[in-house]
Amino acid sequence: MSILEVKSKSGSYRVVAEGNVLATLGEQLQRLHISERTNVTVITDDTVGALPFAKDALRSLAATGYRHQVLEVPAGDHSKSLATASTLYPKLLSFGMRRSDLIVALGGGVIGDLAGFVAATYLRGISFVQAPTTLLAHDSSIGGKVGVNLPEGKNLVGAFYPPRAVLYDLSALATLPARQWTNGMAEVIKHGIIGDARLFEGLEERPLVACPDADVLEPILTAAMKVKIDVVESDEKEANRRQVLNVGHTLGHAIEQRSHYGLGHGEAISIGLVLEAKLAVARGLLDEATATRIERVLAGHGLPTKTPRDDWDEVAAFIDVDKKHGRALWTFALPTAIGDVVIVDDVSPDEVKAVYDRSLEEA
Amino acid sequence: MSILEVKSKSGSYRVVAEGNVLATLGEQLQRLHISERTNVTVITDDTVGALPFAKDALRSLAATGYRHQVLEVPAGDHSKSLATASTLYPKLLSFGMRRSDLIVALGGGVIGDLAGFVAATYLRGISFVQAPTTLLAHDSSIGGKVGVNLPEGKNLVGAFYPPRAVLYDLSALATLPARQWTNGMAEVIKHGIIGDARLFEGLEERPLVACPDADVLEPILTAAMKVKIDVVESDEKEANRRQVLNVGHTLGHAIEQRSHYGLGHGEAISIGLVLEAKLAVARGLLDEATATRIERVLAGHGLPTKTPRDDWDEVAAFIDVDKKHGRALWTFALPTAIGDVVIVDDVSPDEVKAVYDRSLEEA
Repeated sequence: MSILEVKSKSGSYRVVAEGNVLATLGEQLQRLHISERTNVTVITDDTVGALPFAKDALRSLAATGYRHQVLEVPAGDHSKSLATASTLYPKLLSFGMRRSDLIVALGGGVIGDLAGFVAATYLRGISFVQAPTTLLAHDSSIGGKVGVNLPEGKNLVGAFYPPRAVLYDLSALATLPARQWTNGMAEVIKHGIIGDARLFEGLEERPLVACPDADVLEPILTAAMKVKIDVVESDEKEANRRQVLNVGHTLGHAIEQRSHYGLGHGEAISIGLVLEAKLAVARGLLDEATATRIERVLAGHGLPTKTPRDDWDEVAAFIDVDKKHGRALWTFALPTAIGDVVIVDDVSPDEVKAVYDRSLEEA
Repeated sequence: MSILEVKSKSGSYRVVAEGNVLATLGEQLQRLHISERTNVTVITDDTVGALPFAKDALRSLAATGYRHQVLEVPAGDHSKSLATASTLYPKLLSFGMRRSDLIVALGGGVIGDLAGFVAATYLRGISFVQAPTTLLAHDSSIGGKVGVNLPEGKNLVGAFYPPRAVLYDLSALATLPARQWTNGMAEVIKHGIIGDARLFEGLEERPLVACPDADVLEPILTAAMKVKIDVVESDEKEANRRQVLNVGHTLGHAIEQRSHYGLGHGEAISIGLVLEAKLAVARGLLDEATATRIERVLAGHGLPTKTPRDDWDEVAAFIDVDKKHGRALWTFALPTAIGDVVIVDDVSPDEVKAVYDRSLEEA
């Protein structure tokens, strides 16, 4: 079992990473001093809700005497919407959820963001616990960002609202489909690039192409979360330092949108990491050998590393929207070494186009 | 001009109360160090938007060079909804509103709560300035509560999100319909009861039955806001002390709902204040003479003081919902003197019924 502490202005919280932690969900809540009279609503999706560890979690709530209900939303990104949130509020109300009650977000990033947003806004904010069930969620469950998408774009409505705790069941990850596992590894590798050379080197030596036993996974995932925690603690509301987390994401997110989400988030971020490393090389910030290492470790995990299409103009348009309009130059988080990323705010679109188009030619 | 300071964990803010302050809106934003490159969205309703002071405010924004747009929603309580918020987000996006930009909430409590909620959630939170245009909003614009209603009840979705500043144009209040003025006075009187005996006595001597000149209004409104500020500073998130602000509201809010909002908020609160003063007398917390003074000053402002109907069971049901279910005893904020309110948490419904029914018999 690993326990990490995340300090936040609006209250610090613990991250508990452990195999089978959900089977003791009730005890975990007791350990967080959550009163036995607290009403608990578990928000999950219809895929996760059917899995054995979800049933175990509910059994544990029942055994410890917490009055609880389960609200399932359809699995998938489209549930991360104001419309879905609107269907949940009345159900919280009719279950008698008060300001002192608790929401448990049981699922991946979509559930964490949606249930966190509902918790942040129901009765002007009630407590919630993140119970991530995907590898990708090792990233999204830390840092207090919650929110929903609009038809116009992702994460446009939300809040900074830290959870009461993160309970990360490492055994639950064994149930992930292979592609989801691979997608999640892109963010683990990203965290190595941002702040942990040893983590990165470990993945170079022994790629995690599938979910290992909880005791093998624990130190790796803990290291990745530690990088994220260090960054968000130093900059809770994204003013500056937090931008380093965007490495791979400026291009990656645009490529993801351009693919109409045909590419998974991690797959798109993988391409973004490779291209942004090349951009860093082109700017003299990074040596070529390190860029090659980044590309190899991602490829070694079965992740794509090339731009899939000759579509620079479309990708550039998404970057423009993402950068919130109107500036001629773009800001990027670029690696300077394994374990170090800097922010540059004077990147011209033409520089990026050169890297993008070259990646295509090599393909 | 009066300037009050409100200290808040998530940033302190100023309340500027002055005649014609909206005519210098642009200069006020400059004084708040809001950069000239900031995009400004003014959210208002179609009644307020048509008034001369609103036009003056926009002229001032134009003259000071702020790029701005106006978004009007239909006047009335039904605009305070997730559905209305959903129509505003895309318009913020298409105007190019970024995290560093600003919303101005120009209107009464509905606009302040709605625009504040949109500001709290758009891109996970952008700055907003409250520009209240009603007397009632002297209350709602302070304290950082923002939110929308659900079909199931009021203020069920929201956040604690303090504004960057409150710019209170006292001249704008001259345009209020008489009934709105009267409704607002109920909250001014409430603030006297909670924490300012001099304010209360002033209103006993010279009832403000209509909007006076800004220089007469300024010290009165400033005193009322000072009471609210003192309470919310001592208890930002409503844990305890803030409950004193509920005086008159436990019964008042239930009576308001029971009337299907046929009674204005202030009218219902007025009845609630009178009944809760009588409840305090019945409990030996307040002397009868003081309860009579409370009733007289409200009546002197043209506010109702009797329960309109023999409908205790329906009113009690609303209190039960409001109190968030399940406790046999109710919590009330009850006056013990002019300028002092205490919280009691062991009021039986029968005690309240006795007071309620007696008020009816006297009617």
